[in-house]
Amino acid sequence: MSASRTAHVILPPPEMEHTPANCRAREMLVRVADKWSMYVIHVLADAGTLRFSELRRRVDGVSQRMLTVTLRGLERDGLVTRRIYPEVPPRVEYELTPLGSTLRDIVHELIEWSGAHLTEVDEARARYDAQLHDPKFVSA
Amino acid sequence: MSASRTAHVILPPPEMEHTPANCRAREMLVRVADKWSMYVIHVLADAGTLRFSELRRRVDGVSQRMLTVTLRGLERDGLVTRRIYPEVPPRVEYELTPLGSTLRDIVHELIEWSGAHLTEVDEARARYDAQLHDPKFVSA
Repeated sequence: MSASRTAHVILPPPEMEHTPANCRAREMLVRVADKWSMYVIHVLADAGTLRFSELRRRVDGVSQRMLTVTLRGLERDGLVTRRIYPEVPPRVEYELTPLGSTLRDIVHELIEWSGAHLTEVDEARARYDAQLHDPKFVSA
Repeated sequence: MSASRTAHVILPPPEMEHTPANCRAREMLVRVADKWSMYVIHVLADAGTLRFSELRRRVDGVSQRMLTVTLRGLERDGLVTRRIYPEVPPRVEYELTPLGSTLRDIVHELIEWSGAHLTEVDEARARYDAQLHDPKFVSA
């Protein structure tokens, strides 16, 4: 702690200080830490190149608008490439960039984790929900 | 492919079929693939045990309501424990459960990735934004 700071000031830990790099890392996590972005990266990592309609079928539950917004964000961040073939109707294909491919393992790990811990999470939810209906439960 | 399926039917890849386990894995990814859940896991993994106010200071930019909602979700899923000490005012502390701790490395990797690739993403965004203002750019 520097001499100019008084002892009673509670300082944030160094990694949480508002350096530009920290703020940017947070902002980037916004893009990646998003369910649909993760699914799109996961699906493209497995499939290679896909057209919009194929991608939409595989990213189950995504709306057309949400997939469009997600792909634009991933493209802007340099994680996904969009290639337009001048056919009639135009063919548009998406694939991961080399940068996007570096997320492959992390995203797969997270999806694997989700699959591996289903039962534990189910049990935890059942316990939590039972407790909510227990008159001894005090909310804080 | 089973004999009862005709060849022209485009089948989803096996990992995308609607088995209950797949649907549940998707649902769970919703909880974890969320910026604030990841920050809370990241901060608790480093700090151990924290009170709400300490957690809020470290999870920079989170609102009181969003932090409350995030913590309830993580608690319900068995990833975070909330301990209430009957003092005046009551002290409430949060920490990762053993299950929550298994996410530590994945979340750290994602945050490290974000920090490591800031420059590449910045450059990609600048290129994308410049292209949007280029009259030759055709949106599809």
